[in-house]
Amino acid sequence: MDYSNFISQLLKGNPRAAARLITFIENDIDAAEEIINSIYGHTGNAYILGITGAPGTGKSTFISTLIKIYVEQGKKIGIICVDPSSPLTGGALLGDRIRMKQYFSLDNVFIRSMANRGQLGGLARATEDVIKILDAYGCDIIIIETVGVGQSEVDIFKSAQTVVVLLVPGLGDDIQAIKSGIMEITDIFVVNKMDLPGADKKVSEIMQMLEFRKNYKYDSKDISEKYAKIELWTPEITKVNSKIGENFDELLELIQKHKSFLEESGVISNYMKNRITNETIQILKHKLTEKVEELLSSDKEIGKYIDQAIQKSLDPYSMANLIIKMLGLEKE
Amino acid sequence: MDYSNFISQLLKGNPRAAARLITFIENDIDAAEEIINSIYGHTGNAYILGITGAPGTGKSTFISTLIKIYVEQGKKIGIICVDPSSPLTGGALLGDRIRMKQYFSLDNVFIRSMANRGQLGGLARATEDVIKILDAYGCDIIIIETVGVGQSEVDIFKSAQTVVVLLVPGLGDDIQAIKSGIMEITDIFVVNKMDLPGADKKVSEIMQMLEFRKNYKYDSKDISEKYAKIELWTPEITKVNSKIGENFDELLELIQKHKSFLEESGVISNYMKNRITNETIQILKHKLTEKVEELLSSDKEIGKYIDQAIQKSLDPYSMANLIIKMLGLEKE
Repeated sequence: MDYSNFISQLLKGNPRAAARLITFIENDIDAAEEIINSIYGHTGNAYILGITGAPGTGKSTFISTLIKIYVEQGKKIGIICVDPSSPLTGGALLGDRIRMKQYFSLDNVFIRSMANRGQLGGLARATEDVIKILDAYGCDIIIIETVGVGQSEVDIFKSAQTVVVLLVPGLGDDIQAIKSGIMEITDIFVVNKMDLPGADKKVSEIMQMLEFRKNYKYDSKDISEKYAKIELWTPEITKVNSKIGENFDELLELIQKHKSFLEESGVISNYMKNRITNETIQILKHKLTEKVEELLSSDKEIGKYIDQAIQKSLDPYSMANLIIKMLGLEKE
Repeated sequence: MDYSNFISQLLKGNPRAAARLITFIENDIDAAEEIINSIYGHTGNAYILGITGAPGTGKSTFISTLIKIYVEQGKKIGIICVDPSSPLTGGALLGDRIRMKQYFSLDNVFIRSMANRGQLGGLARATEDVIKILDAYGCDIIIIETVGVGQSEVDIFKSAQTVVVLLVPGLGDDIQAIKSGIMEITDIFVVNKMDLPGADKKVSEIMQMLEFRKNYKYDSKDISEKYAKIELWTPEITKVNSKIGENFDELLELIQKHKSFLEESGVISNYMKNRITNETIQILKHKLTEKVEELLSSDKEIGKYIDQAIQKSLDPYSMANLIIKMLGLEKE
């Protein structure tokens, strides 16, 4: 298929072309390869914000308020709502998307939901490609919203310059829930619904958690990748009330502060390197898996290995090692 | 570490050795490789049942009743409760596990919960290895229970000889929910809570769905892998009331019927081949990813590619292709 017309429309800022190209990219990894190849030179201008929080932390009101402010500043915004836990499109995310859409004109705000439908190359790969589409489309800021917690979110947030995590007063489990990987890559903690009792308590809980973290020797790859050998960014904490926009000026300052930190410290080059590395790994995983599947179904030698494994004389790990040898990729 | 003592205890049927080995396997893929290598010759005796159903379909009561019957028949049972959607252990699954444990002595019933904690090589790999532990431990039947739907479940169920899906009267969404991949690999549909109104309606809904499926040209790899070139098994449908054990005799007959079908038709050898292939792919994916990560962080040539990508003169897909070439794995 020829995507050049869609691509030239995309670069002119046509939202329908963006939507179509995203669909191609999600459904077909070969299309993704071709499209990304064509638009890659036009990317790199958007600032990417990752936003997450447990259900009930008011993510969509928060994001709506944030968008409203950015749009008033004349910015063009892309929002990608990613739900790694759901194989179904729709549900809460789609509801939010529709609710959000009512507030904004399509010219300045582009919203897209993505669910985990077993995309070839994975959801993180697809999300990264959608970011590039919206970047080439001309978005100044791209917000990646994810629900839930887990390794998938961590992978997806490797694409974000700044990661914001929402918490709310009272909800006791939320700090616990974000401890698994996301916490280590969070740049700004936001206590939403600051009008509720317990907002300050939540702030001090976060501070305690960060204090604990400071004293804890990391071997986490995620954080060392991002901030390697450079003085760590100390995560900022703020409180907001998204319903009335209270304290968003401070929040925006903190986002700006983190952005400046990344540039001035040179951490931004680590970020770019890691982002590209991570992306390439996702793509390579897919390509190598394809290769291996092909081999496993057609190679006669491997057919013999499979028979041996069925007869219990060769276990799957040893078989994997033999195949790696066959591929000329022996472990030194 | 030396696992030989644990392994000899495992082969004698020591449940504590089984539990320890499972923990090793879950946390450390190198340990898994060593352990599986040692026990592989002792596996292959267990019959593996995959059981799933949406929340509210009464999975734990159903499984408890099934276990009770099997235990009365003198069988030794292993149950692996897998929750691919949750990064946290605990929650509903753990509750069920504890509830189930009250009913059975540890000698005949071994229960283990697994959540998605970003296991190296993936949850499907870890589950497959745990199956092998329980197989070598001497289980006659291993039940893999999963919650939810999605691609992860399909991968996990590639290890099962017979896949049972639970539905209940009334719950309208459940058929819709299982349509995404699981349906194609289901061997027996069970309408649980048959005492509720609408049980027969649910049965006919399933029949309609199967009818639709029959007329639908598949290009699904999952089904062709399992039943390739052999007359398809027509999924059976039955109704039970798990609380009082009603109609479980019929259910057990259907499971036996499917077991006989697999053996007599020769489909069992497809199953074994696919299971080993799938497993090897999971392991290879992990090993190749490790390899690639190593390359990306150390190879000077690739360092140059990354710089080019940062300067937007090389996109990540093209970089992946260059690395595949470097590895000597060019696409023909």
